[in-house]
Amino acid sequence: MSDSNLSEEVLCREIVYGGKVISVARDVVKLPNGKNTFREVAVHRPAVAILPILNDGRILLIRQYRHPVKRVIWEIPAGLLEEGEDPAGAAQRELREETGYRAGVLERGPSFFPSPGFCDEEIHVFIGKELAQDPLDCDDDEFVRVESVSLEKALSMISSGEIVDGKTILAILWLINSLGISQR
Amino acid sequence: MSDSNLSEEVLCREIVYGGKVISVARDVVKLPNGKNTFREVAVHRPAVAILPILNDGRILLIRQYRHPVKRVIWEIPAGLLEEGEDPAGAAQRELREETGYRAGVLERGPSFFPSPGFCDEEIHVFIGKELAQDPLDCDDDEFVRVESVSLEKALSMISSGEIVDGKTILAILWLINSLGISQR
Repeated sequence: MSDSNLSEEVLCREIVYGGKVISVARDVVKLPNGKNTFREVAVHRPAVAILPILNDGRILLIRQYRHPVKRVIWEIPAGLLEEGEDPAGAAQRELREETGYRAGVLERGPSFFPSPGFCDEEIHVFIGKELAQDPLDCDDDEFVRVESVSLEKALSMISSGEIVDGKTILAILWLINSLGISQR
Repeated sequence: MSDSNLSEEVLCREIVYGGKVISVARDVVKLPNGKNTFREVAVHRPAVAILPILNDGRILLIRQYRHPVKRVIWEIPAGLLEEGEDPAGAAQRELREETGYRAGVLERGPSFFPSPGFCDEEIHVFIGKELAQDPLDCDDDEFVRVESVSLEKALSMISSGEIVDGKTILAILWLINSLGISQR
């Protein structure tokens, strides 16, 4: 099957829920076999995430309560792209808000869809190096704690299930791979 | 700040949208600073994903149209956990449905939250080895194409932006790291 034989055609879209962070669209699509079906889509703004590396090789992680999963988890700094904002600028803003650092060097990592089966959100990953103090005030309803860990420790935290955030695991594994470090 | 000083208390929950794949809850929570705010949660069933490795070291990828992101993308086999189903059983079922293979050996990879900021979905990753033909019929509205690629090729497809699915990138980087392969 070629790609064109896998694609679906949108016949109509109805916004069935309009919220603050997500909206839900209910689309009627025509399947490759000619039949029609409904597809639900969570509509969500694009986001950025940045893995900050200190000069000594340790990385910065954020400890943050996430209500949807009802626990305090480890994450890299991240947030939604604001209207008209470029991803690199948003990454610097989130880094400054959540850790108090600005990155002298920003490298692009993967851009990916965390849940393409039901949500259109795209996350742009950056690696932040040559950090310098340059804090920016946090959002009022954001409460975070910053800690630094070695990459080896971060990898063991992924293996043990202590780090459970997808973008954070992806970014750490990406960095480890790009540095040519492995656990063997 | 300790973890308990980061946590939020749920005061009440209202289901504001009930759909097929997701529902949306609007919760009132008490913040660590004592103020109340709303939190939107997309409620979604847990899922499994499985990275299948052939005996020659190549991996199997699925080519599938994903309506929310409006494109045909590369993914590893994945799907929702059915009621009462254990993750390993679900991983075998999805593997059989989408590739026609059963895994003789199933290894657990990370379990992670793809979007903990707004969604409660958890994905359990498996690595499938010692594959043997044992097909199971696909869902009626599922159209996929299977291809095999080397791990080196998969890594270059992540670097080039050809692979954009989060769970697929995470699982491939996890496998590469656990095998001690790196791009340097």
